[in-house]
Amino acid sequence: MNEIIGELIKMRAGDLMKFTKMTGEVIRAMRECPIPIIVKIQGIAAGADSVIALAADFRIVGTSGRFTFLFTKVGLSGGDMGAAYLLPRVVGLSGATSLLLLGDPIDAHTADRYGLVSQLVDDDDLDEAVATLATRLAAGPTLAYAQTKSLLTREQDMSLSSALELDAMAQALLMTTDDHAAFNAGRPPAWRGR
Amino acid sequence: MNEIIGELIKMRAGDLMKFTKMTGEVIRAMRECPIPIIVKIQGIAAGADSVIALAADFRIVGTSGRFTFLFTKVGLSGGDMGAAYLLPRVVGLSGATSLLLLGDPIDAHTADRYGLVSQLVDDDDLDEAVATLATRLAAGPTLAYAQTKSLLTREQDMSLSSALELDAMAQALLMTTDDHAAFNAGRPPAWRGR
Amino acid sequence: MNEIIGELIKMRAGDLMKFTKMTGEVIRAMRECPIPIIVKIQGIAAGADSVIALAADFRIVGTSGRFTFLFTKVGLSGGDMGAAYLLPRVVGLSGATSLLLLGDPIDAHTADRYGLVSQLVDDDDLDEAVATLATRLAAGPTLAYAQTKSLLTREQDMSLSSALELDAMAQALLMTTDDHAAFNAGRPPAWRGR
Repeated sequence: MNEIIGELIKMRAGDLMKFTKMTGEVIRAMRECPIPIIVKIQGIAAGADSVIALAADFRIVGTSGRFTFLFTKVGLSGGDMGAAYLLPRVVGLSGATSLLLLGDPIDAHTADRYGLVSQLVDDDDLDEAVATLATRLAAGPTLAYAQTKSLLTREQDMSLSSALELDAMAQALLMTTDDHAAFNAGRPPAWRGR
Repeated sequence: MNEIIGELIKMRAGDLMKFTKMTGEVIRAMRECPIPIIVKIQGIAAGADSVIALAADFRIVGTSGRFTFLFTKVGLSGGDMGAAYLLPRVVGLSGATSLLLLGDPIDAHTADRYGLVSQLVDDDDLDEAVATLATRLAAGPTLAYAQTKSLLTREQDMSLSSALELDAMAQALLMTTDDHAAFNAGRPPAWRGR
Repeated sequence: MNEIIGELIKMRAGDLMKFTKMTGEVIRAMRECPIPIIVKIQGIAAGADSVIALAADFRIVGTSGRFTFLFTKVGLSGGDMGAAYLLPRVVGLSGATSLLLLGDPIDAHTADRYGLVSQLVDDDDLDEAVATLATRLAAGPTLAYAQTKSLLTREQDMSLSSALELDAMAQALLMTTDDHAAFNAGRPPAWRGR
């Protein structure tokens, strides 16, 4: 991280903006990616790593895991890469304020209490937990997962009324898929993603 | 549920949309209804039942209660009937992602930890808990309840600035009501809803 | 409080609106103030006090602390001064509905479980906890704190896409500050706020 920041300090406004916009594009791509994203956290996720973890769909965290949104500690804005948008929507505005303003590290159990952890496991069980979830998602109904994730992302920015309209269209479409038809016909769920 | 889905599978696009929009209208009506809505949950609330429970104002849940947003398990979108809008606003985006993407059931205590439960009681005490709350709400200040619920619904979709403006108008109006005047005059609170 | 309400009851529509808009301006000013705001809560925070506590950035609560959003108990709207906007974003829509519709008091531990408490301490340690945090914030990177708070406030009302754009611009600007440069040069962090 010090190396990255070392390069940044020499840049002028235009190049700084290019850099910060590029980091934001990572978060946008993660949220708009139709495939669910799992992050595995062992040891500390600091700064940008914390925000990338925040933008994932599943955070599987080992007991050694820690998070620190340390931006203010280096004189920067805690609202980096969408953190001031995402974190309040994950842990509430009060917890997000403490985490982003103060930048102090929290351990895995505290993160879990905040609502930042999808699954808390022993470090020794981390790889297996990630593999189990990844395998399940890979074998599951691709279209249904992609649509659910897309709605979770989009409906943070929509009114209830518009969200209901979008849901109705999306669900009607999914009702015409082979995946749903197979389920209805009582066939074993060999999801084909179409 | 299998019977409903059995009928749906024969439908074409236009009819499917009519059906999914109709289910969305149920949720909109619940959120826009000026009367607070209580749901009692004993045993499992699955699929649409879970979303209807989510759209209520109070979820009184017995210890046998369970929730499952099972849509992806049948190849459909987890964002059905406003679930991808409502659930993140109730339990946060991380918990909502796990519940809607995976569709696994959670028991009453887990639902309570997620923030999905208004009141958790023994199954034997469910009817009394519901009756107590319903009686209290029915005997209370109707206009104040209706206005509070309306603002909770609408201000999910408004900026802080607009919300403050709406609050100011609503509160000024309520300050002119007989209900509030009775309180100010120190008369016993026999709410008249006007 | 009874004295305030006693005066209000004599007012006509125009003056009532002036009063309710003025109370809303307090909340807006708190949220838009570039300096982080700490509230210390000992004993009961009732009605408007509760909402003012809610609009602060840090709520340091003694074990004797209680909150009651009692508006409906006096026939008024629970959505006073932005409460129906802020409280769901702090504790989720389900908890906020119970607190604002029913108006019942909650104790410090319950408020903590709801996510309403930034720091829970013994009453005897309240003054020290507040002084410690205030001193830390006063000695810290002013611009970074101000920008973080501003983004937390604004991005509740923005789309992810717009939030990422705003973050990129804000962070690029902060990367040009003396505060950040001092950190990069490895100098001790004597924050100068510019």
